[in-house]
Amino acid sequence: MTLTEQMTDLARRAKAASRELARLTTDEKNRCLLAMAEGIEKNAAALKEANALDMQAGANLGLSAAMLDRLKLDDKRIAGMARGLREVAALPDPVGRVLDERVRPNGLKLRKVTTPIGVIVIIYESRPNVTADAASLCFKSGNATILRGGKEAMNSNRLIAETMIDAARKTLAHFPEHAIQVVPTTHREAIPVLLSLTQYVDLCMPRGGEGLIRAVAECSKVPVIKHYKGVCHVYVDGDADLGMAEEIVLNAKCQRPAVCNAMETLLVDKSIAARFLPAIAGRLAEKKVELRVDPTTREILTQTAPNAHSASVRLATDQDYYTEYNDYVLNVRVVDGVKEAIDHVNHYGSAHSDSIVTKDEARARQFLNEVDSAAVYWNASTRFTDGGEFGMGAEIGISTDKIGARGPMGLDELTSYKWIGIGNGQLRT
Amino acid sequence: MTLTEQMTDLARRAKAASRELARLTTDEKNRCLLAMAEGIEKNAAALKEANALDMQAGANLGLSAAMLDRLKLDDKRIAGMARGLREVAALPDPVGRVLDERVRPNGLKLRKVTTPIGVIVIIYESRPNVTADAASLCFKSGNATILRGGKEAMNSNRLIAETMIDAARKTLAHFPEHAIQVVPTTHREAIPVLLSLTQYVDLCMPRGGEGLIRAVAECSKVPVIKHYKGVCHVYVDGDADLGMAEEIVLNAKCQRPAVCNAMETLLVDKSIAARFLPAIAGRLAEKKVELRVDPTTREILTQTAPNAHSASVRLATDQDYYTEYNDYVLNVRVVDGVKEAIDHVNHYGSAHSDSIVTKDEARARQFLNEVDSAAVYWNASTRFTDGGEFGMGAEIGISTDKIGARGPMGLDELTSYKWIGIGNGQLRT
Repeated sequence: MTLTEQMTDLARRAKAASRELARLTTDEKNRCLLAMAEGIEKNAAALKEANALDMQAGANLGLSAAMLDRLKLDDKRIAGMARGLREVAALPDPVGRVLDERVRPNGLKLRKVTTPIGVIVIIYESRPNVTADAASLCFKSGNATILRGGKEAMNSNRLIAETMIDAARKTLAHFPEHAIQVVPTTHREAIPVLLSLTQYVDLCMPRGGEGLIRAVAECSKVPVIKHYKGVCHVYVDGDADLGMAEEIVLNAKCQRPAVCNAMETLLVDKSIAARFLPAIAGRLAEKKVELRVDPTTREILTQTAPNAHSASVRLATDQDYYTEYNDYVLNVRVVDGVKEAIDHVNHYGSAHSDSIVTKDEARARQFLNEVDSAAVYWNASTRFTDGGEFGMGAEIGISTDKIGARGPMGLDELTSYKWIGIGNGQLRT
Repeated sequence: MTLTEQMTDLARRAKAASRELARLTTDEKNRCLLAMAEGIEKNAAALKEANALDMQAGANLGLSAAMLDRLKLDDKRIAGMARGLREVAALPDPVGRVLDERVRPNGLKLRKVTTPIGVIVIIYESRPNVTADAASLCFKSGNATILRGGKEAMNSNRLIAETMIDAARKTLAHFPEHAIQVVPTTHREAIPVLLSLTQYVDLCMPRGGEGLIRAVAECSKVPVIKHYKGVCHVYVDGDADLGMAEEIVLNAKCQRPAVCNAMETLLVDKSIAARFLPAIAGRLAEKKVELRVDPTTREILTQTAPNAHSASVRLATDQDYYTEYNDYVLNVRVVDGVKEAIDHVNHYGSAHSDSIVTKDEARARQFLNEVDSAAVYWNASTRFTDGGEFGMGAEIGISTDKIGARGPMGLDELTSYKWIGIGNGQLRT
C-alpha cells in the first residue's frame, strides 16, 4: 500500500467515524470519556512501559534532558490525563447550541445551530499527554481526530489512543473505533499527503514551534488554525498608574517567560519614560531580565543608573522587535503616544496578546480598537490569554487567525454551524 | 517592477488602508456609501462608454451572447448598483457587536467583539456590477477589498472602482483610497502571487464556476471561503404530504434551475414511490424536465406511463449523482428510508442545501441532524438558501466550508472577532 493509499484510508475512516460520532448523545459521549479516564488509570503500568521504550530510544538518539522530560509519562502525568478526561466529560456539550433564530415573513423558521466540524488533524511535538487532551476535546465536540505526535513519542501515543478506544468500546458498543486514530507511520511525507485530502479532512491544528507550524501551513490544502508565536506587548501610557504598570510588566514578563502570552516588548510613552524606566529597569534587573533597548531608553538608563544595568542592557536591533524570546529577555522602546504604540504592535507583533496601561479611557479605547490582535487588554497582564483563564474549561490551542476561531480555543471553538429551516411547504416565488 | 513587487505593493497598501478603515465611524462609512451611489449614477455615461470598450473587445474575441449579456452595463444595471450601495448603507454596522461577555472571578471583564477581517480578495467572472456589490459589503464591514474581475470586464471594473473612490474622497477627506483596489493586471500569475501574501491578505472569496474556484483554492496560501457547486437534494419521505412534496420538488427544480440552490437529485422513499413518481414525473414532463433515473424509478414509470416519458427519461450513471446540471435535468432515485437518503446526500451532495418532506418529526430531526450540509430544510424548498431570503439584507456569497462562515454570507459573515479584557491591574498568579 502506498503512503497516499494509507493516508486516504485513514482519512476516509475518520470521516465515516465522524458521521457516527455526530449521532452520539451527550450522555453517551460523557460515559465514553469517563470510561477512558478509568482505562488510562488502569493501564498505567503498560503506559509507563510503552513510554520507557520511547524514553530509551530518545536517550539513544541523544535527545536533550528538556526533551526527555517533556516525553516522560509518570504517575503524575497519567493521573493528569485521567483528570483532564473527566473534566472534559463535565463540560457542557458544545454541539446543538442555537446561535441565531429568526422567523421569516413567509413563516419559515430559521435556526443557526452549532455542529461538529468533522475530521480534525492535530499535529504536535513531544508531550504524549496531548494525545489524550486533544482527542478528548475533539471527541466531546463530535469530531473525529487524526493525531500526529512527535515520532519520539510513537509508542506512548499509540497506547494512549488504544487505551481510550478500548475503554470507550467496552462502555458503548457502537462507539466508532476510528473516531480517534494515530497516524501509523513516522514518514515525513505523511503530513502533506494527509493535508491534501480536502474531501475527508476539515481542519488541521498544529501545535509546537514556529518551524513546525510554518511547514504545516505551507503544505496544507485544508484549513489550518494556528498561532506561529507570541510576540506580546505592554504599552505604558503617559496617564498610567505607574505602580500598576510595574506590576503588570513584571507579571507579563516574569511570571512564566516561556509561554506564548508572555510579554516580549515593553513600550513606554515618552512623557513618563524618564520616571518609569529607571524604576522598572531596577525591578527587572532583580529578576535577571536582560534588556534590548532603543537609544532613548539607553540614554535614560545611562543617566539615571549609569553602572547598574550596563551588563544586561544592549541596543535592540530591528529583528529583536520581531523575536519571541520565551526567556528573561525584554525589548524596551520609548514611543510618542498611543498611535505610535499601536503602529509598533501592529507592525512587529504576532497578533496574539497586547495590553495598554492607562487611566485615560479614550486612549484605552483607541488601543483596544486599533490593535489588530486576538486579545487586547486594558490594565491587565497579557498572561490571561488562556482557555482556563477565559473560563472555557479546557483549551486545545490559541489562534491568531481571523477565519474561524481567534484567541483561546475551547470546546465551542471546535464547532462549525449549519442553518436549519423548518417550514410547512414554503416555496420561493 | 516584477509581478511579485506589484502584487506586494497592492496588498501592503490594502493592509494599510484596512487599518484606517477600521477607524471610520458607522456614519462616515454610510456617508461614503451614499456618495458612491450618487457617484455611480452621475457617472453613468462614462461607465457605459468604458463598458462599450469591453463589449467591443469581447465581441471581437468571439464571446458568446450569454457572456456578452452578463458583461453589459446598461441604465438598469447602473441604477441597480446605486440602489445596492444605498441598501448596504442602510444595513446595521456588523463591527463592534458583542458576541459574548463574562466577568472572571478576579474581576477581569472579557468581551468577545466583532471586528473587520482585514484584507479580502474577491475573484469573480464577467458581471461588472459585482465590483460595486462586493466592494460595498466589504467596505461597510471595515475590510479593504482587492478585486479581480474577469479580464473581459477590466475597463468597466476599473471605472466603477474609481468612481466609488472619487465619490467617497469628496465626501470624506480621510477616506483611505486603497480601501478598494482593482488588480491592475490581467496576468494569470497575479492570483497565485497575491494569494501567497499571507502577511497582508486575510481571506479570498472566489465566485464563479467550479473550475475557477478549484484553481483558486489549489493555489491559495490564504484562507478561501467558497462553494464549488450546488448539488442539492429533496428527499420525499414515506410519511410526506405528497401534495406538498410535489410543489416543493417543482419549486426546487424549476423556479430557477440555473442557480446553486436548485435541486439536482430527487430521492423518494420506496414505500410511496409507486404513488408519487408517476404524479411528479407527469408534472416535471410538463416543465420539460429531463430525468436521469435509477432502475426502480424506470420500472415504476414504465409500468404507470409506458409511453409518456420515454424520450426524456434515461438511466442515471454514478457520475450523474455528482453533477450540478443548472438546467431542466433531474436525477431521481428510490431509497430505502431516511438513512439511505442521508447517506446518498452526504456521499454525492455538495453540502449546500438539502430538504426532507415528511410529517414524521423523528425522521425529519434525523435528516436535519445527520445531513452534513450548510443548510437543511424540513418541508421547504432548497431555494431559500440566499442572503436575502435569510434576512441578511445582502449576500456576498454562499459557503459550504466549515471554518469561518457557512451558508449564505452577509455583512455579519464578513467579520472576525477579538477578545477585549478590561481590568484594574489584574495579574496572573
